[in-house]
Amino acid sequence: MANVSQPRSDGVATGDQSLLKRINSAALLRLVKTGSGLSRADLAKRSGLTKSTVSLLVQELIDDGWIREAEVPVSGAIGRRPTPLEMDNSRLALLGAEIGVDYLNVVACDLQGRVLAEQLQPYAPGELPATLAALSAMLAQQDKALAQQGRRLLGVGVGIPGTVDAAGRRIGVVPNLGWAGQEIAAPLAALLAEAGVRAAPVKVLNEANAAALSEYVFGEGEGIHPDSLIYLSLGIGVGGGIVLGDRLHLGHDGSAGEVGHTILQLDGPPCRCGSRGCAEAFVSQRAVSLDLTGATAPILPIAELVAKVTAGEPAAVAATERAGRYLGMLMQNICNALDPAVIVLGGPMGQLGAPYLATARASFQALQGRYAFHSTEVRLCRFGLNACAVGAAGAVLHDALLA
Amino acid sequence: MANVSQPRSDGVATGDQSLLKRINSAALLRLVKTGSGLSRADLAKRSGLTKSTVSLLVQELIDDGWIREAEVPVSGAIGRRPTPLEMDNSRLALLGAEIGVDYLNVVACDLQGRVLAEQLQPYAPGELPATLAALSAMLAQQDKALAQQGRRLLGVGVGIPGTVDAAGRRIGVVPNLGWAGQEIAAPLAALLAEAGVRAAPVKVLNEANAAALSEYVFGEGEGIHPDSLIYLSLGIGVGGGIVLGDRLHLGHDGSAGEVGHTILQLDGPPCRCGSRGCAEAFVSQRAVSLDLTGATAPILPIAELVAKVTAGEPAAVAATERAGRYLGMLMQNICNALDPAVIVLGGPMGQLGAPYLATARASFQALQGRYAFHSTEVRLCRFGLNACAVGAAGAVLHDALLA
Ligand SMILES: [Zn+2]
Ligand SMILES: [Zn+2]
Repeated sequence: MANVSQPRSDGVATGDQSLLKRINSAALLRLVKTGSGLSRADLAKRSGLTKSTVSLLVQELIDDGWIREAEVPVSGAIGRRPTPLEMDNSRLALLGAEIGVDYLNVVACDLQGRVLAEQLQPYAPGELPATLAALSAMLAQQDKALAQQGRRLLGVGVGIPGTVDAAGRRIGVVPNLGWAGQEIAAPLAALLAEAGVRAAPVKVLNEANAAALSEYVFGEGEGIHPDSLIYLSLGIGVGGGIVLGDRLHLGHDGSAGEVGHTILQLDGPPCRCGSRGCAEAFVSQRAVSLDLTGATAPILPIAELVAKVTAGEPAAVAATERAGRYLGMLMQNICNALDPAVIVLGGPMGQLGAPYLATARASFQALQGRYAFHSTEVRLCRFGLNACAVGAAGAVLHDALLA
Repeated sequence: MANVSQPRSDGVATGDQSLLKRINSAALLRLVKTGSGLSRADLAKRSGLTKSTVSLLVQELIDDGWIREAEVPVSGAIGRRPTPLEMDNSRLALLGAEIGVDYLNVVACDLQGRVLAEQLQPYAPGELPATLAALSAMLAQQDKALAQQGRRLLGVGVGIPGTVDAAGRRIGVVPNLGWAGQEIAAPLAALLAEAGVRAAPVKVLNEANAAALSEYVFGEGEGIHPDSLIYLSLGIGVGGGIVLGDRLHLGHDGSAGEVGHTILQLDGPPCRCGSRGCAEAFVSQRAVSLDLTGATAPILPIAELVAKVTAGEPAAVAATERAGRYLGMLMQNICNALDPAVIVLGGPMGQLGAPYLATARASFQALQGRYAFHSTEVRLCRFGLNACAVGAAGAVLHDALLA
C-alpha cells in the first residue's frame, strides 16, 4: 500500500505526491517503450492522464535522458502533426555483470539492451570481498568509458550463481561457492564507490532470474512484454527463471525456478543435488557427457559434444536426442503447471542444434495430450553468453519501470 | 494503471477519487481482517493514512456492514482505551456454488468462510442454460434465507469443472461437458435476477482455482495470507489451483495449475488426457482403483477404497502407498518449480489416511535433495466437499478486498 500523508475531507488521501508522480512517470515510460512513435496526445489517451500532466512528465523524461522527440517525416499536409516520442538510447546506460563459477562477465548496455561494451575475464572466485573488488574494478573501467560517451549511469545489476533474499541484500544458497548467508549488496555498493563508479542503484539477483529478465525486459524489442515467461538455462547444470505478473517469481524461500531439479523419473539416475531422476540428470551437458563416456567427470566440453554431433557420431546423436526428448517433457510439465506465454531456451546446450532442439520441440508437441490448446511460444535466448549480465542490467531498468 | 483525471501543476494527477478511496478502504479492511483487534490509531499507523482519513473510512465500513467495534473488556485503568475493530460477520453474506459433473452444490457463508447453509443436489448437467437455471433456483432459495436473516448479499461465485477466460465471462475447455466456448457470466446473472436473487457481482472460475481461494481467503483465520499457495484436488482426477502474488495465477491460456497432467514418467501408464505417465495416472482414485481391479472402469468408490485400506488389505494398502509415493514426487516438483509457502491437499483421496498422506509426506521429504531448505508447509484442506463452493464465494470477497 502506498504511504499517504495528506487528509482530505472526502476520505481520500492524496498523499505522497512524489510516489504518485513516479508511478505516473514510469507508466508513461512503459507506454513509450512498448509503443514507440506515440505522441503526447496518444499517451494521454492511453494512460488516462490529462494532456497537461502528460506534457509535464514527458518534459521531465526528456530532460532526464529517457526519451526524445523523434524526427517527424516531412509531409505535404497542412498543419502541425503531433510529435512522436521514442526511447532515447543515447544518453543513459546500464551496467550488468555475472559472477560465474570460473569467470566474471561485465556488459554496458543501453535502454534497449544493446550491448555497448563487454568484458569477459577468467576468474576463480575465492572469498566474496576479493571477488567483489575484482568485479568492481571491471565495472569502474566500463563506467569511465560510459561517462566519456556522455552517458549517465542508471544502475548496476549483478547475477550470482545462487539464491538471494527478496530484498536483494544477502546471499542464500550458493552451491559452488562458500558465500552462503553473506551480505552482498551493501559491500558491493561500497566497493563500487571506492573504485570510482558513479553513484547509482545496485541490484543483486540469481543468474537464471537475471537471464529471464534479459528476455522479458529487452527480448521483445518494440513489442509488448509477454504476460509470463520461463527461462531455461541449459548447460552443465539446468536452472530456471520465472517472470509472472510483471515480476520475477522468487518463491517463499527465494528458490523458485529450480525446474532443473524437478523429478522426471522416480528412482532415476543420481543428480548432483542428492536426489535422483531430476531433469538435470537427463537434459544437461553433464547428462549427455555421462551417457557418452560413462563417467561423471570430467564433463565433455560443449565444443567437443557439438563436434561429435555435427560429425554424426551415432552415440553422440542418440545421447543428444535422448536429452532433447526429456527436455520436451520438462517443457510440457512447465506448460501444464504454469501455462506461460513464452519458454526461452538459453545456455550452451542450444549449440547442439536440431538433435537437441528439434527433438525437444517434437517431444513437447507429442506429450501435450488434450492440452494441445496451449499457445506457449518456445524460442531461443537472444543474448547468448551475455544473457545473465544483460539481464542483470535489465533488472535495474525493470525496477525503474515499476517505479 | 489507475485512471486519473485531475491535473495538478506539479505533474501529479490526483485523479479518480472514488478509485483511490476504494483502494484505501480495501486496504483498511484487509488490515482488520488479518489483525483483528486493531484500533483506528493502529490502522493509521499501519496504513500510513492519517487518523482523520481512517476515521472516515472506518465509519463507512461500519455503516456498510463490513466491520464493527468490538466489546472493550472493562479494566480498572483510568482513561478511554482505543476501541478495537473486528470483522462483522453478522450483516453481510456470500453465496458460492459448484457445478460438478453429477451434482450442484450451493453454500451461503459469512466473511470468515463459515458455512451458514449448504445444499447439495444430484444433477446431471445437460445444456448450459438449463443447468444455470437449476443452479439459480438453488441460489435464490439461499438468498431468500439470507435476506430473512437481515444479511446483505455481497456477491455470487460459481466454480465449474473447466477453464474460464481471464475476464470470467466465457468457458474455455470443459472436458466432461459440451459447453466449450459458451458465455456463462452474463446468462447466469440474467437467470439469477429472474430467479429473484438480489443484485450483486457474479464471478465464475475454475473449480480448482476456487478451491485454492477457499484456503487463501479463509484458511488462515486471523492470520496473514501466505505469499503463495498451491491447492491439489485429489480425486478421480487431479486438478490444481495456484495463488501467487495475491492473485490466482491463471496462465496465458487460462489453464495454469493442471499439475495433474505434469508427467512423472516418460512412456508411463496412459492418462485420460491422451498423454502417458501423468501425475493423475499415478496418484488419483482412478489410478489406485486400476491398480486393484486391473480395469479403468468402473472406478471403485472412495468409500470402498477406504474400507479396504482400513481393513488392511495388502493390495489396497500397497496401491495406496504407491500413489502416495508419487504424490510426494509431485509435491517435490511443485516445490522446486514454484517454492510456494503452502501446499494444500484436498479432495476425497485424503480419506485414505496415513497410507496415502504419510507416505506422500515421507516421499516428499526423501526426494528433496539439497533443496531441504524449502520451508513449504503441507496441510489438509479444511472445507472438505465444500472447498470449491466456499472458494467461489471467497473469490467474490477476494475481488472486493483487492478493490
Ligand atoms: Zn537434482
Ligand atoms: Zn494426463
